[in-house]
Amino acid sequence: MANDDKLLYPVIAVNDAETKHFFDNRYGTGQSTLDGITRATNILWAGRRVVVAGYGWCGRGVASRARGMGSHVIVTETNPIRALEAVMDGFTVMKGIDAAKVGEVFITVTGGFHAIGREHIEAMPSGAILANSGHFNVEIDIPALEEMATAHREVRPFVEEYSMKDGRKLYLLGEGRLINLAAAEGHPSAVMDMSFANQALSAEFIVKNQGKLAAGVHGVPIETDREVGRLKLESLGVGIDSLSAEQQRYQESWEEGT
Amino acid sequence: MANDDKLLYPVIAVNDAETKHFFDNRYGTGQSTLDGITRATNILWAGRRVVVAGYGWCGRGVASRARGMGSHVIVTETNPIRALEAVMDGFTVMKGIDAAKVGEVFITVTGGFHAIGREHIEAMPSGAILANSGHFNVEIDIPALEEMATAHREVRPFVEEYSMKDGRKLYLLGEGRLINLAAAEGHPSAVMDMSFANQALSAEFIVKNQGKLAAGVHGVPIETDREVGRLKLESLGVGIDSLSAEQQRYQESWEEGT
Amino acid sequence: MANDDKLLYPVIAVNDAETKHFFDNRYGTGQSTLDGITRATNILWAGRRVVVAGYGWCGRGVASRARGMGSHVIVTETNPIRALEAVMDGFTVMKGIDAAKVGEVFITVTGGFHAIGREHIEAMPSGAILANSGHFNVEIDIPALEEMATAHREVRPFVEEYSMKDGRKLYLLGEGRLINLAAAEGHPSAVMDMSFANQALSAEFIVKNQGKLAAGVHGVPIETDREVGRLKLESLGVGIDSLSAEQQRYQESWEEGT
Amino acid sequence: MANDDKLLYPVIAVNDAETKHFFDNRYGTGQSTLDGITRATNILWAGRRVVVAGYGWCGRGVASRARGMGSHVIVTETNPIRALEAVMDGFTVMKGIDAAKVGEVFITVTGGFHAIGREHIEAMPSGAILANSGHFNVEIDIPALEEMATAHREVRPFVEEYSMKDGRKLYLLGEGRLINLAAAEGHPSAVMDMSFANQALSAEFIVKNQGKLAAGVHGVPIETDREVGRLKLESLGVGIDSLSAEQQRYQESWEEGT
Repeated sequence: MANDDKLLYPVIAVNDAETKHFFDNRYGTGQSTLDGITRATNILWAGRRVVVAGYGWCGRGVASRARGMGSHVIVTETNPIRALEAVMDGFTVMKGIDAAKVGEVFITVTGGFHAIGREHIEAMPSGAILANSGHFNVEIDIPALEEMATAHREVRPFVEEYSMKDGRKLYLLGEGRLINLAAAEGHPSAVMDMSFANQALSAEFIVKNQGKLAAGVHGVPIETDREVGRLKLESLGVGIDSLSAEQQRYQESWEEGT
Repeated sequence: MANDDKLLYPVIAVNDAETKHFFDNRYGTGQSTLDGITRATNILWAGRRVVVAGYGWCGRGVASRARGMGSHVIVTETNPIRALEAVMDGFTVMKGIDAAKVGEVFITVTGGFHAIGREHIEAMPSGAILANSGHFNVEIDIPALEEMATAHREVRPFVEEYSMKDGRKLYLLGEGRLINLAAAEGHPSAVMDMSFANQALSAEFIVKNQGKLAAGVHGVPIETDREVGRLKLESLGVGIDSLSAEQQRYQESWEEGT
Repeated sequence: MANDDKLLYPVIAVNDAETKHFFDNRYGTGQSTLDGITRATNILWAGRRVVVAGYGWCGRGVASRARGMGSHVIVTETNPIRALEAVMDGFTVMKGIDAAKVGEVFITVTGGFHAIGREHIEAMPSGAILANSGHFNVEIDIPALEEMATAHREVRPFVEEYSMKDGRKLYLLGEGRLINLAAAEGHPSAVMDMSFANQALSAEFIVKNQGKLAAGVHGVPIETDREVGRLKLESLGVGIDSLSAEQQRYQESWEEGT
Repeated sequence: MANDDKLLYPVIAVNDAETKHFFDNRYGTGQSTLDGITRATNILWAGRRVVVAGYGWCGRGVASRARGMGSHVIVTETNPIRALEAVMDGFTVMKGIDAAKVGEVFITVTGGFHAIGREHIEAMPSGAILANSGHFNVEIDIPALEEMATAHREVRPFVEEYSMKDGRKLYLLGEGRLINLAAAEGHPSAVMDMSFANQALSAEFIVKNQGKLAAGVHGVPIETDREVGRLKLESLGVGIDSLSAEQQRYQESWEEGT
């Protein structure tokens, strides 16, 4: 809308605040995705081959927590730099089609379209579990799944068993919608508090600067972002240092200095 | 009973099988304890100070999974060797009273009595969560907690809020009973299968050896234990090697050899 | 220089390439810092309290690897958002002065000035080891250390023992210079290859675009950065996917779409 | 010797003390094995496929530390229960021959014979690194390696490059002898102290009990073992609890109790 000059008032992109996407996406999604799948299926994570499609902030969170539960995590990516980070972080990286052949649980967090498509569904072993924790229910090609199945039925709440033509059984969770919202309680309040704080302080910022902000998209002011971080640390009883005048001076004269 | 000559028939101590206590206690309890607490409270584990009382098989499982979710894990122990293992495994080890002062979530897995006693309850910060995943509801001194409180009420299913005389609020989960059974679904089937296999194969062993086994407590035969392990690996699609004749020979002549 | 209009030709800031600072700083510094300290001291990392000053890319690498070796890692920071990330990543965060009292090994990776100052040196327990893996030998206040000591001597190569007036012994490694270069071999070639590839391809880019680039500082072109990542993955035998035309379209029409 | 009635005096098996093999083998070997390989080769561990042959105490240590450095760890085993533990601990478990095809670094810690044999050497990719941290230099079939090679030469200290008939290059470290002793400094003193304490206290025990101990092999008395653990904790400044009389009573009346 901004690009098309159709945004007629100032807007703050709260989602881009560091205290929003660093925390909510990574730590919130990481935990609550596993939580949703556990509640839906009661699977044991230890020793299980878990395929995480996408290694953005959400993907990192999910991969890290799945490893923390003892799973063997396989990451698929289309961005080579992210793929390389996943490798160096100790995860196995594969093409989607190779991952499809060996995975037991598949979690999409790409924010994209058909991260799990027809060819992946064809390759999956019987018993595979499919869940989405990305944006919308288009990350898994559900129409293809339905077309390839002869029947489906709910075997537990949020668990739909698809009987495939070749005899395999595949399990789609929560109709492919965000599994942490479908089968669990979403993000814990301890991570939503920062997101809400950013929203509240941004709204206040707009009010206080009425008439001074141009129409268009603005970032959350860095001072607001840091203030949210500072308040959160305080509430956790965690103390940090501040730069001394001398350290500040050194930091600023950095290039000339040493 | 065996010690008192009152056990009049042969019994197999299935719980001592390696494919039982190594797996069920460690991987089962580890995951399901956190699961129970998450379902009861929806807390964020990342960044939280979690005190695990006891570093036996269950304690290791709980400590390891809590760390895997991003918690800061503090272990308390009475056995110096276990305490040292916890230190070397990267956990913070403290006396119970020191842990009580800084912990946010307390989980008892000692199999003992009053691992959390009156003095610990006195020292805990307001907001502390208390859960038991050991044996019985005597690991937390609940009578002391009730006596020290002025009132209590259920704030969520399985979460009882105690208002203390000094104004603090403490939260006891599942009445101090096994939290994974109280608030979650207990162990996943993927870990109970081995426990049940041991029971079935041990029952078969007793039947097949009718009249040959003395009255008293017998261990699960090592062959049965290994067979359960072998079958489980097979079901997971994991292949392992067997010793060649030459390797077998080397292993047996070990002491003389080299 | 660019800001002062004194940069008379185009320059590419290779250090800012993602395939440079994400990898070299994080995985290279992480490993080689521990390697340098191990070679200098032969300490056991398991169970040791390691203070990492700074949680930038280098600090994350060092903290993560120290935890991987079984250490208890304490992070100090001045930036609240980074401090909060460290907390959520499961590290203990403290003020520098509190960390000084309990740490056993201190590693500076702030890129700043006197991250370990006089007051920290005063508070450290006897036996503490001090190493720098940040930028220059000003991260530790060495003049203060020397002034506070009555004598110093080399007890092993790269290990200088300072006898303090109050009887404590402190150990400064590699004269406070980059410990991975001082006492080990610097970064492994498997991480420097990407840094060098960026340099070579950037030089080629400048030559090919002679006369077209304005004087000033340019970033590494994103295509170059990705190409380096792609080549590295290929050399590791790791395959990744590319976006299909349909996925590309979905990604671009993102905002309107769903 | 004891079995053959040839042991004519009492002996204490210090190696079986918990404060010996739990710590020295696991934490000592884990760290120092990686240290030896790093010093010999300066490889980057992050993202590397490391095959650990054997999942006993040493193997656990090595696998855990390699993961801690960001490696992808593959375990091979012949004991199904240990193999299953490795799976549940999040490691990939394979047959040796399958691991040989994909590994980049191979570490033997089986205590056995030819854990890496001719068929594995044949399957390894060019560039593979072979190191032993088990007992003797028979874990890798070096005679086979030499026979299959056309030439070999030292390319760095402790690194012998074998040129294979098919053109591959394989790298044997430290002549297949214990790599932590060959290329590094062996175990850190912080873990050997407990081994030496056990030896000293066991010698004292034998002297004090002169004439009372039968000829044959005795275990380290549990009191000695715990005392070593207790002293070590004290030296680390770590406090633990002791059981109250009431807790002791509960523990002993365990079976009848609840």
